[in-house]
Formats: sequence, structure tokens, C-alpha cells
Amino acid sequence: MPLVVIEGPKIEVGQKRELVKKVTEVVSEVYDIKNIVVIVHENPPENVGVDGELVADRRAAGTS
Amino acid sequence: MPLVVIEGPKIEVGQKRELVKKVTEVVSEVYDIKNIVVIVHENPPENVGVDGELVADRRAAGTS
Amino acid sequence: MPLVVIEGPKIEVGQKRELVKKVTEVVSEVYDIKNIVVIVHENPPENVGVDGELVADRRAAGTS
Amino acid sequence: MPLVVIEGPKIEVGQKRELVKKVTEVVSEVYDIKNIVVIVHENPPENVGVDGELVADRRAAGTS
Amino acid sequence: MPLVVIEGPKIEVGQKRELVKKVTEVVSEVYDIKNIVVIVHENPPENVGVDGELVADRRAAGTS
Amino acid sequence: MPLVVIEGPKIEVGQKRELVKKVTEVVSEVYDIKNIVVIVHENPPENVGVDGELVADRRAAGTS
Repeated sequence: MPLVVIEGPKIEVGQKRELVKKVTEVVSEVYDIKNIVVIVHENPPENVGVDGELVADRRAAGTS
Repeated sequence: MPLVVIEGPKIEVGQKRELVKKVTEVVSEVYDIKNIVVIVHENPPENVGVDGELVADRRAAGTS
Repeated sequence: MPLVVIEGPKIEVGQKRELVKKVTEVVSEVYDIKNIVVIVHENPPENVGVDGELVADRRAAGTS
Repeated sequence: MPLVVIEGPKIEVGQKRELVKKVTEVVSEVYDIKNIVVIVHENPPENVGVDGELVADRRAAGTS
Repeated sequence: MPLVVIEGPKIEVGQKRELVKKVTEVVSEVYDIKNIVVIVHENPPENVGVDGELVADRRAAGTS
Repeated sequence: MPLVVIEGPKIEVGQKRELVKKVTEVVSEVYDIKNIVVIVHENPPENVGVDGELVADRRAAGTS
């Protein structure tokens, strides 16, 4: 505790490493607690909708 | 915001498109907010338990 | 199953009733499954950040 | 309802069966409610960070 | 890690103590990992919908 | 998208402001996406368990 869950698109392992390091630093600093768990959920663009449209469709249409 | 997370079984992309469109419409209407994000998590039947049994086992047994 | 979690601002009980009814209808229709659970989490505007700013601050500044 | 979401590493189907059975028993007993849904999310070690480091890196370094 | 999130109705502190103790025991045993975090979210009956109806309304109607 | 959910103890509004600002900066940088939503869930110490014990009990016992 605290625990951070990030819902985002697929990313490379290098990005995950950087994400976990930096998010842990800032969360740790604000809460003044060292023990932080970060979980990264990667979601394909056809599983996320923004404003009623799949991100996959928005990309295909060039609107996102 | 608002954000909707749906935990369900695997579905086709056409169903995801319909799900995101319709859920966004009704959520948008109730909150009177346009900006809605919908995330669909697909869970295999061996990762979900109902009443103490895996959905995968209930299907194999014909009870679900 | 399926399960729907909605993270949004505080709303009235009448809106919750409408939200649960309508979300259940559309989710039920897409998945062709009757048994749907909907959980509504209400978040105060000082607990949600958009583009790096608390919603509470954006409202006070008239930008949201 | 109640609903239990478990975020953990990958496990075998036999472990999922045991997990769902036992978690349902204890949750059911405490709440005195029979109808329990359990969802198991399996996360690869490169998607979880503990104390600022990916679990994948901690394992490679022998610190976890 | 692992992390367990439980979405349920309001309960007494004694029930939370028992819930956390027992859930940790069984999760710990299945994963063979000691370090478990359990988070209990308490939801009022007007914030949960089952089969399209608020739990608050189902109780008032005597159907739940 | 991306979306960040933080489960932590109660904090002051100034800490939430700082948390949302800094988490958005680092998440934004790693994903190279500007549009980030952060939701902060505050959990009382009697609703979180670590290693089988409520945080509230660990504090009372001086072990946490």
C-alpha cells in the first residue's frame, strides 16, 4: 500500500520499467510511504472506447 | 470521466463496438457528460468463478 | 458476470436507478447474458484529476 | 455480489479452481451471502512493479 | 502482490478483520506467496445494481 | 486514456493536487499521450489488510 493500477495501451518493457520507477517515486513522495505496488494493464485498441467509438476504429479513421 | 470498466467473457470486435457505443450513450445521458471512457476486460472462463466453481468447469458440467 | 464498474461524480438515487437499469439492458443485450452486476463508485471532485489538475480546481477556475 | 478481484501472477488451472473455491467459502461465510463472483487477473512479471522495480527485473537480479 | 479487492456491502470492523485474515490465508496458500494486500470497498445498497435494479430497491420490495 | 487508479490512505487536498500533477506528468511522458485521468480512492485503515492484519490493528499494535 499504496497501490497503483494503470490502464493503458501496449508498451515496451523499457517503458514499463521507466513507468514503474517514476510513478513509484512520485507516489512514494506524496504519501511518504516506501512500499508501493504498481500494476500495468495493457489493453488492445479494440477494447477501449472513447466518446462512443473504439480506439481501433478512431485510429483507422484517422481521428485519434 | 466518467469511466466504465466492464469485466466479461471474450467477445467479437463487432460486439465491442456495439457495447462501447450503447454504454457511452446511456452513461452520457444519465450523467449529462459527453466525455466517457469504456474499457472492456475479456476474461477466459477458467479465470472467473461463480458460486465457488470456475465458469470453465460449470460449462463442462453443463450447469452454466 | 458480466460485471460493470462505473467511476463517476456523485449522483442522485434516481440517476443511479436509471443508470443501472439502462446499462444492464445494453450490456445484457450485447453479451446475451441476463445476470449483470453494476457497481457505481462516486468520487468527489477533489479525488479526480484530468490533464494534471483536480476536477475541483478546474471547476473553481471555470475551465471545466 | 460480493465481488472479488484478484491481481496476481500466472497460475495453473488447478490453482485457479482451488483459489475460487476457498476464497468463495471464506467471503461467503463472513458476509453470510452465497452469491460470490471471483475474477482472477493474471499479470506477467514485467507488468508489475514493487518498490520501483519490475518483478521481472527483481527476479533476474535474484532479489525477489 | 498478490492483491485482492473485495467489493461488498458495509460490514463491521470485526468482519473486516476476519475477512482479511481468512482471505490472506487462502490466497497465500494457493500462490505460495506471503505478501498479500487486501482492500475492502464498502458500497451502499443504492450504488449496486443486480439484474437491472438497485439492491436498495430490491430490499425495499422484499425481492432481495 | 491512459487511466490511473490509486488506492491509498486518506490524504489532504494539497497532496491530491500534487499527486495528480506529478503522476500525470510521468505517465504522460512514458506513454507520450497528454490525456490522462487519475482517480484517487481513499481507504480507511480498517478497510485494508497487509499480511493478514488490518492496517488499523497494525497501527494500534505499533507494528505498522
